[in-house]
Amino acid sequence: MDDLRLCGRFDRQKTVVPVGPLRFGESFIVIAGPCSVESERQLLTAAWMVKEAGAHALRGGAFKPRTSPYSFQGLGLAALKILDKARRETGLPIVTEVLDPRDVPWVSEFADMLQIGARNSQNFSLLKEAGKGYRPVLLKRGMYSTLKEWLSSAEYILSAGNPHLVLCERGIRTFEVYTRNTLDLSAVPAIRELSHLPVIVDPTHGTGRASLIEAMSLAATAAGADGLMIETHPHPEEALSDGDQALPPDRFRTLVRKARAIRECWERLE
Amino acid sequence: MDDLRLCGRFDRQKTVVPVGPLRFGESFIVIAGPCSVESERQLLTAAWMVKEAGAHALRGGAFKPRTSPYSFQGLGLAALKILDKARRETGLPIVTEVLDPRDVPWVSEFADMLQIGARNSQNFSLLKEAGKGYRPVLLKRGMYSTLKEWLSSAEYILSAGNPHLVLCERGIRTFEVYTRNTLDLSAVPAIRELSHLPVIVDPTHGTGRASLIEAMSLAATAAGADGLMIETHPHPEEALSDGDQALPPDRFRTLVRKARAIRECWERLE
Amino acid sequence: MDDLRLCGRFDRQKTVVPVGPLRFGESFIVIAGPCSVESERQLLTAAWMVKEAGAHALRGGAFKPRTSPYSFQGLGLAALKILDKARRETGLPIVTEVLDPRDVPWVSEFADMLQIGARNSQNFSLLKEAGKGYRPVLLKRGMYSTLKEWLSSAEYILSAGNPHLVLCERGIRTFEVYTRNTLDLSAVPAIRELSHLPVIVDPTHGTGRASLIEAMSLAATAAGADGLMIETHPHPEEALSDGDQALPPDRFRTLVRKARAIRECWERLE
Amino acid sequence: MDDLRLCGRFDRQKTVVPVGPLRFGESFIVIAGPCSVESERQLLTAAWMVKEAGAHALRGGAFKPRTSPYSFQGLGLAALKILDKARRETGLPIVTEVLDPRDVPWVSEFADMLQIGARNSQNFSLLKEAGKGYRPVLLKRGMYSTLKEWLSSAEYILSAGNPHLVLCERGIRTFEVYTRNTLDLSAVPAIRELSHLPVIVDPTHGTGRASLIEAMSLAATAAGADGLMIETHPHPEEALSDGDQALPPDRFRTLVRKARAIRECWERLE
Repeated sequence: MDDLRLCGRFDRQKTVVPVGPLRFGESFIVIAGPCSVESERQLLTAAWMVKEAGAHALRGGAFKPRTSPYSFQGLGLAALKILDKARRETGLPIVTEVLDPRDVPWVSEFADMLQIGARNSQNFSLLKEAGKGYRPVLLKRGMYSTLKEWLSSAEYILSAGNPHLVLCERGIRTFEVYTRNTLDLSAVPAIRELSHLPVIVDPTHGTGRASLIEAMSLAATAAGADGLMIETHPHPEEALSDGDQALPPDRFRTLVRKARAIRECWERLE
Repeated sequence: MDDLRLCGRFDRQKTVVPVGPLRFGESFIVIAGPCSVESERQLLTAAWMVKEAGAHALRGGAFKPRTSPYSFQGLGLAALKILDKARRETGLPIVTEVLDPRDVPWVSEFADMLQIGARNSQNFSLLKEAGKGYRPVLLKRGMYSTLKEWLSSAEYILSAGNPHLVLCERGIRTFEVYTRNTLDLSAVPAIRELSHLPVIVDPTHGTGRASLIEAMSLAATAAGADGLMIETHPHPEEALSDGDQALPPDRFRTLVRKARAIRECWERLE
Repeated sequence: MDDLRLCGRFDRQKTVVPVGPLRFGESFIVIAGPCSVESERQLLTAAWMVKEAGAHALRGGAFKPRTSPYSFQGLGLAALKILDKARRETGLPIVTEVLDPRDVPWVSEFADMLQIGARNSQNFSLLKEAGKGYRPVLLKRGMYSTLKEWLSSAEYILSAGNPHLVLCERGIRTFEVYTRNTLDLSAVPAIRELSHLPVIVDPTHGTGRASLIEAMSLAATAAGADGLMIETHPHPEEALSDGDQALPPDRFRTLVRKARAIRECWERLE
Repeated sequence: MDDLRLCGRFDRQKTVVPVGPLRFGESFIVIAGPCSVESERQLLTAAWMVKEAGAHALRGGAFKPRTSPYSFQGLGLAALKILDKARRETGLPIVTEVLDPRDVPWVSEFADMLQIGARNSQNFSLLKEAGKGYRPVLLKRGMYSTLKEWLSSAEYILSAGNPHLVLCERGIRTFEVYTRNTLDLSAVPAIRELSHLPVIVDPTHGTGRASLIEAMSLAATAAGADGLMIETHPHPEEALSDGDQALPPDRFRTLVRKARAIRECWERLE
């Protein structure tokens, strides 16, 4: 496909994307943290919890793409300053979502990796702006994106000059109502055969149910994912957004331990 | 639903949205024109064709949201100047899509109505910016939007201060492959019972097949739509984008004539 | 497509399917009646109501394909005897669903037309048995059937020897939750260009909401459908199944009157 | 849910379903074999291949539910006799699909387990007949079934008297076109929390691409599936049906070895 000149180039090995000390595509990486940054105390507690569980990077939303304009929209700059402090204290690289092309330059000063969310998977202005930036990008699949469309969106970033790109499967929309989305784990091996980019999995949004996240994390790991993105919160029942799908500390620790064990087993299989 | 405070307010009659001399929600309105503005000659020919067929407003893309970064992306400012000239010559109001929140202010100087497309249906920065603007907005349904989500996106525009909003059903994504999307005409009466906003239908993107557009235009009209949006091109086989779904002049004229007849019949039924 | 040897043969005009005195494909036909036959009184009342509204055939379920084994499963033979009586009294031909290949021969003695429902759209044993029978068949689209698959199921009936086949669009399953299914009216013109078979529309199951049925009936008519299938009940609030989507007598009469007016207008357009 | 009286009863442990010497729900079971029984030689070769790779049961279609009536429909009784011979020679229990309620009694004389396929997931006559039979049943999820509907179909079998039931996730239909279906692995932990029935996974139909099957088998195993169902063929390129998705002997052996390793690791995690 001529449309995937850069995404599909196989004249070199699988791409390795450096994010602070981490190398996506080389080792298995767990990004975790709360849906939204709610307060300094909440985030720092979460950050230490993430680090102690053995995860590698901290996520936290400063700008929240909420269906309703009346829902909590995120703390914005204040959240970014808190994330910055969490990085200084814990050493964890920061991953945060950017919603507006105008925000790419200045958010890049706070974040180690910019996330582009499912709702913006074909927001081409934002993709181009992230492609002109200097920060690695985490591009989520749109909830209605075919694999080819997802890679075409990735191509917007690569063709604008930024080669540091990681893909993230987060579930597609189907008729099923028990889960919030249908996590399409076949995307992991499929992206592997269509592209050289690393691909991680977000089972939190992919299922929308805390009770299913551990099983889907292990499944994603065994499918060969390069990492996981997990929502965790010190007190899920008090979360300002998406509390139903955030894992409490003990269950998050168990998840990380088990995913590591599956990953080690999987690595020995090759 | 508290999330739809403004969309769902029924303390007044159905909203009427003025666009130049037109009044959406009051009379049946046909917006038509090519997918993209390709040249002054192409657009002016199309504009006269649209006017002579009895349609009411001219559409034409200056910025095209294309799946691939290597596809034609639109002529930008040059296209807007051509659209402006077409309005002066034909008197037709101009509807054009805006993709980037930074473009809302200056595109508003050229267009009579700003379109927000399916891919940006949850681009909240763009919705807010259009909501702060002074131009009426045509908000397409996302290809994965539920009716409630679509209205919630509309709520972003209304709550930012702009009351001049028209909705446009353009098909949702399903498993069917014969058509490009599945046009959900039940959205027309459903929006009518959930909201006071006018709703029009785009059978061009809703089917993606020129051969199905006339039948679906008549169906939309009989479902009670407030108007239609149709792609037409003086020479579809030479179009730079979406030529397969553009109607040639004669078939477009026939469509307008028949849709009018169905509309008149429908009005007499009440 | 070699798979559609009989469905897609265009060496003759559009097929006309005779059902009692009716001729599907030639004139516009409305089939109506309750979801289930519940009692002689209920059905006879419904039958007269259907006839007086100007509809042409009576539907009523004797065997109900219910999601749960604990839901009302239909009266079986008793229902067929009641339907038979309704035909004798009103003269309306009877359309009823058959679920099991073993029932095709004996149900054919009571019904004028056998319906094969959405859940059995790929029940090939049933399709073949109906194809070997002598009664005309009404084949509903599966809620997950592509147009090609639907026509391939039709091909099972035609290739088994029964040429009397009418198709019925009844909505496909999508992510939308406001409606029970998404009625795909583009199936009407699409089937017209792929096949010679008549196609009618069932807006009752297609929307699952009584409030949307009239608008979708008019839309189906303007799309060129050969008829409608509508659930109506003398007292919807007392129905044993699907009462939410059955129209009461007055609204059904209005629907038939309006659909006829749209049909007449549509016929004059050609 | 009152609709799932038997499926959802948790007054006892997870159900164990005995099939010959196997115990579904207790140990991890791999069912494998060709899509269709094509000849004695093909099937016996496949059977030994399946056994030598360490799999536990043999699948092979005698009746094939093909979209087109002109496609190979299976060898019927001749296939069942060949399957019977394969059991006698290899000792592997036989799993085969039944399409028609009239076939349940006599097919039960040849098969150790009756499969009900995705297209018949709401063929209630067939479900009831299998529920009255004495053979364990493998019930595949319909390609459009919600989890609740799938369990309701299972309830038809249980309520008819047959407690020996295993569920099989095989992918649902979505807009994605790269894969044949979208394998919904979240069904594995979801069924676990909604029911006591064992659940296995069919990544062959779930992806439709030989290249993705190994990764999805490992993922299913790590998600906690009770087993796998895999299509394998001595010479996939010569298969009469579904050759594109059948694994050749060497790749099948590798898959079984790796799935076992993941399963052992998973068991140690609890």
